Amino acid sequence: MAFQLSEKLKNMVPYEPISGSYDVRLDANESFLELSDDLKSELGDVLQRISLNRYPDPLAAEVCERFAAYYGVDPDLVTAGNGSDELLNIICNAFLEPGNKLLTVLPDFSMYAFYAGLSGAETVTLKKDADLQIDVDGLIETARREQVSCVMFSNPCNPTGQGLKREQVRRILKELDCLVVLDEAYMDFYTESLLDEAGDHDNLIILRTCSKAIGLAGLRLGFAVANRTLSNVLRAVKSPYNVNTVSQAFGAVVLSHREEEQKALAQILESRDALYGALSRMQEKAGCFERVYPTVTNFVLVKTDRAQEIFEKLKTRSVVVRFMGGYLRITAGSPAENKRLLDALCDILELERTVLA
Amino acid sequence: MAFQLSEKLKNMVPYEPISGSYDVRLDANESFLELSDDLKSELGDVLQRISLNRYPDPLAAEVCERFAAYYGVDPDLVTAGNGSDELLNIICNAFLEPGNKLLTVLPDFSMYAFYAGLSGAETVTLKKDADLQIDVDGLIETARREQVSCVMFSNPCNPTGQGLKREQVRRILKELDCLVVLDEAYMDFYTESLLDEAGDHDNLIILRTCSKAIGLAGLRLGFAVANRTLSNVLRAVKSPYNVNTVSQAFGAVVLSHREEEQKALAQILESRDALYGALSRMQEKAGCFERVYPTVTNFVLVKTDRAQEIFEKLKTRSVVVRFMGGYLRITAGSPAENKRLLDALCDILELERTVLA
Repeated sequence: MAFQLSEKLKNMVPYEPISGSYDVRLDANESFLELSDDLKSELGDVLQRISLNRYPDPLAAEVCERFAAYYGVDPDLVTAGNGSDELLNIICNAFLEPGNKLLTVLPDFSMYAFYAGLSGAETVTLKKDADLQIDVDGLIETARREQVSCVMFSNPCNPTGQGLKREQVRRILKELDCLVVLDEAYMDFYTESLLDEAGDHDNLIILRTCSKAIGLAGLRLGFAVANRTLSNVLRAVKSPYNVNTVSQAFGAVVLSHREEEQKALAQILESRDALYGALSRMQEKAGCFERVYPTVTNFVLVKTDRAQEIFEKLKTRSVVVRFMGGYLRITAGSPAENKRLLDALCDILELERTVLA
Repeated sequence: MAFQLSEKLKNMVPYEPISGSYDVRLDANESFLELSDDLKSELGDVLQRISLNRYPDPLAAEVCERFAAYYGVDPDLVTAGNGSDELLNIICNAFLEPGNKLLTVLPDFSMYAFYAGLSGAETVTLKKDADLQIDVDGLIETARREQVSCVMFSNPCNPTGQGLKREQVRRILKELDCLVVLDEAYMDFYTESLLDEAGDHDNLIILRTCSKAIGLAGLRLGFAVANRTLSNVLRAVKSPYNVNTVSQAFGAVVLSHREEEQKALAQILESRDALYGALSRMQEKAGCFERVYPTVTNFVLVKTDRAQEIFEKLKTRSVVVRFMGGYLRITAGSPAENKRLLDALCDILELERTVLA
């Protein structure tokens, strides 16, 4: 008998990125800010000093220290990954196996269930309410009833833009004995991080990323912060050379420029507020969306029955947002990009541009 | 009950890189050649054009095309990874699960069993003979008897430096129905690649890397070459953004400089021949090693009862090689590095340096 794919593999479909070239990309929650010329020139200098023929530091010590200094955590509790994506994969590899269950909430980042599935674990899903909030009591109750090995969720949440308070997350940690993976990819935009107490919980792994507020999506640099025992597991399970030398070196440089990063963050928040304001006014004045959700991230979620139509028509105007069933998730872009999007929305919805003001 | 680690995780130990700083690193089979100043300057220019705030191309199309052109394969059959290490992990994730068996040979690259273990699969091991050759008949027979899901081995082999002929590998592929993962990390140094027929086999995945002959260990850039069906599986199972933008761009540049790469390869082979020659003469003239194995890679394996002692004494002279039980694996370095190593060996073994000539 010749080699045969398993049923699981036969049904898997490669990730299909949005293909084609678009003027305005508001689909991936990236920072719209390129690094400054000064910073790029500094990276260029660093590059000349790197020995690309040598393997990277397996522990990525320098960039972990810079990350730790930037966020005020103990560097011993920090593990670097090839994006927090890889860390999710590592965590699922380590902590989940066939017969185990992962609890996720819906909607949330879709890759949690993907990596759990690769590890052969089953994913149990708790739906959010109409306000897209996590029902904390329901989460605790479900985790117990289903005897899950792990709970994984983002705070603030991608794609809803909603956030839990620290106290709510602490309650989940306290009430559950299972591993809790808290994805704080968007926490730079919000104020309810548990980073400073990551080492004090026996069942908590916090994930952070340089792909959003830090503006380094191209480098693939994520971090897991957890107590020493869990950090040791992550370091033992990861590939020895998982973060390349260039990303380590460039990440260390960028994380040393706190002032520039804080300025960038302020610009993103300003753009986000402007985008949310304009979309809200469109909804209030023209009733053209079902709902525009408030947000503590760098994107705005919009509920509308016309989501697919709007998504397609935006694409013909060279503007891409993320289409998710009856929702559109729109990343805050530069002022010019936001204007391109909002003008295009007015055209598509046949509204006067005065609704934006 | 508080959160508890599983027994499997309690026993895992983080990878311990050789710590400390050494003048001469001959332990990791890296290329001893830094990129030329011209090439580094070209990479610097490329860097200025990269938008680090945007996610990488999920399919790494350009670097896959350059790889395909460099080696004369169809780019549709090429999948890029964060080093071939990540590709091993992806393959194990996809094709192995608890209850499955992986067949490896011993000695071989230790990470095969590591990743299989993470996927919950059992590893069955076939020992090599005294000449450190793979017993092809024994391999086929063992794979059938144990009903393994996958056979994984390196050709040429790390750490033995020995190679199989194409015809031998073809026989394994033809006689077995299971997946065969052929790690050709060191094939640039040898002439028995199956790359040009990768698409014709239904059960073959070939792995290649830029970390050895291509001299880019710091970038973490590996490639899997397989038929369309298997390539689709790898693309579906990998993380969407597994290879960062810088590694994609830099890898594409370096793989476009064939002439420079071929020159570098010739220099490495020359160094390797010189190193092998000197070590062989030491053995022949002074009988100081049990055996110096001929090699078709960029390193030389030496069998000696004094391996640990020599390894430790080399370290005190700021020279690092790889210690593996009763063996030393020594990477070919620059002429100056080889001289440092050989002089140090003469000192440690109390030999006149005339044995080297």
